[in-house]
Amino acid sequence: ELQKLAALVEYDGTEFIGFQRQPVGRTVQGELEKAVRQLAGTEASVHGASRTDAGVHACGQVVSFWIRDNLAPHVVVRALNHFLPGDVALRGACVIDRDFDVRRRAVARAYRYCVRLGDGRMPLQSRFCFVMDGKLNIMRMRQAAKSLTGMHDFASFASSLEDDEPTVRVVHEARVVRKADVVEFWITANAFLRHQVRNTVGQLLRVGMGKCSVEEFAALLQAPRQGVTGPAAPARGLCLARVRYEPSL
Amino acid sequence: ELQKLAALVEYDGTEFIGFQRQPVGRTVQGELEKAVRQLAGTEASVHGASRTDAGVHACGQVVSFWIRDNLAPHVVVRALNHFLPGDVALRGACVIDRDFDVRRRAVARAYRYCVRLGDGRMPLQSRFCFVMDGKLNIMRMRQAAKSLTGMHDFASFASSLEDDEPTVRVVHEARVVRKADVVEFWITANAFLRHQVRNTVGQLLRVGMGKCSVEEFAALLQAPRQGVTGPAAPARGLCLARVRYEPSL
Repeated sequence: ELQKLAALVEYDGTEFIGFQRQPVGRTVQGELEKAVRQLAGTEASVHGASRTDAGVHACGQVVSFWIRDNLAPHVVVRALNHFLPGDVALRGACVIDRDFDVRRRAVARAYRYCVRLGDGRMPLQSRFCFVMDGKLNIMRMRQAAKSLTGMHDFASFASSLEDDEPTVRVVHEARVVRKADVVEFWITANAFLRHQVRNTVGQLLRVGMGKCSVEEFAALLQAPRQGVTGPAAPARGLCLARVRYEPSL
Repeated sequence: ELQKLAALVEYDGTEFIGFQRQPVGRTVQGELEKAVRQLAGTEASVHGASRTDAGVHACGQVVSFWIRDNLAPHVVVRALNHFLPGDVALRGACVIDRDFDVRRRAVARAYRYCVRLGDGRMPLQSRFCFVMDGKLNIMRMRQAAKSLTGMHDFASFASSLEDDEPTVRVVHEARVVRKADVVEFWITANAFLRHQVRNTVGQLLRVGMGKCSVEEFAALLQAPRQGVTGPAAPARGLCLARVRYEPSL
């Protein structure tokens, strides 16, 4: 008999072309499916709650897959970690209902974006932070971030929309936290458009640098048009921190 | 005319076989010499204050090299960072006396070792921390660490000594700092024997796990014999944090 498991997954996205399996290239989904295949001895598919882009990390991705029910979840975790490469690992697992869809049933995704203020290159930081020189006005970024919360049309912050793709999302929280030389952005929403977090952080950084006013930032939500933000913040600073379910898994 | 510069160097040691140039393999010294060569247009040699092993990181390595004196130090830093790969960078530079030897003149080296307590694998942590499962008795580790300070024969903590190699060193400080799930070891000495920090941390961890008593630890210093410690802590957790000069550079 087979059981369906949900697992918490952590990965360093640097060496992946993204979460989602592709015909060519190393993906998180591909590595997970390979590991499940090695354990199960048959074809296997793994589904993720959130599709992260190339270079984006996760400490709270959630995936689901089927496996023999004579294996306890903690045994599956240990066995799959044995097969997985060093930059992706399962942090835990539990049994879920056969019809539980980890993507559709997720009620919120929380992303963290990490900026480190510093001049020049920082090899010990640059894998997981965007290192930038200069000063940021934190108060102004916080004011701008306030306008993000609630239900809005986020088309201004999307990259490459499909035809007729709905662009309304609910942002539950958008926080800017400063700890010494590190500025963290925490953004939680029911779901995100493609590149929404990185475009939002990129634009908030322009607010912090004085290149965009708080009012101009708010106007991006009031008059949504695609492609109006400046460049997205680099993938390396982004991490999928948590996927939330109701009731929690 | 040539000037002699000292530079502060940061690197992620993961992809290096060590600091010191070797006939084969990627080294920090090799990459630095290649960059100086590209800037200077001639053969160049770079000297380091401390030889770190394969996989060991640095945020405070100090190196010296010669370069044309019509280039200001901050210009040299920027130019060399342009040529250097992403996992090594200069953080600053200054002019030093022609006969200043960054290795011999260093009065102290400070190393930080990072342990993260957690079960299972942690891809976002494992590059710069040793991840271990289980509980550590911090108080006992602190008591053991106290016996390290002062002038001692550290032969017990050395790997592969040369014949007649002196094994007496002065440890200025040995601290154990706990921050939530992270335990940091800070060890400063005038100089270190080969693998001394990693053997010391490995043995302190055994004290923390109850596999070695505080008295047994102290006895390693009172009756020095090579090869009596257990396995060294892995290189990935170690970082050369600072090299100190008198007066400071």
